[in-house]
Amino acid sequence: MHYLGTATVKFKQSVLEPQGKAIQLSLHENGYKGIELVRVGKHIEVTLQAESIEEARSNMNQIAEELLYNPVMEVCEIHVEEIQAK
Amino acid sequence: MHYLGTATVKFKQSVLEPQGKAIQLSLHENGYKGIELVRVGKHIEVTLQAESIEEARSNMNQIAEELLYNPVMEVCEIHVEEIQAK
Repeated sequence: MHYLGTATVKFKQSVLEPQGKAIQLSLHENGYKGIELVRVGKHIEVTLQAESIEEARSNMNQIAEELLYNPVMEVCEIHVEEIQAK
Repeated sequence: MHYLGTATVKFKQSVLEPQGKAIQLSLHENGYKGIELVRVGKHIEVTLQAESIEEARSNMNQIAEELLYNPVMEVCEIHVEEIQAK
């Protein structure tokens, strides 16, 4: 079975995120009103094979912990769904 | 009213995405089986004020086109929802 795992990695609220600040400043300079906060994170898609959705979730959690995010500075949300083989 | 706009920016399937390739290779070297594809994109959150959700969506679309993605190489999915003021 084929699964699509999605990991959304964001900096913790207490951590300065310069790319978002740059976008926010640029929006302000371009005349946009009412922009309160911009934060940029990562959206990581992993297509993987597994026997079941539980196995796919477990693999995805392990991958995220090993490679996709740094728990000191970031938080990671994981979503897994079954997909059709291409 | 306060809204949270989320833009998910991904490279088009035809575009080589080296960060994902590096993760894929690293997973392979670490013994993970069944990883078919890894793609890294951006997850951008914009907190903004607007009179209505329609106005917030319209602002978010304009911001995305101006600053958040390059339509030649990337695709962008936008989601807007109302949030409580902090």
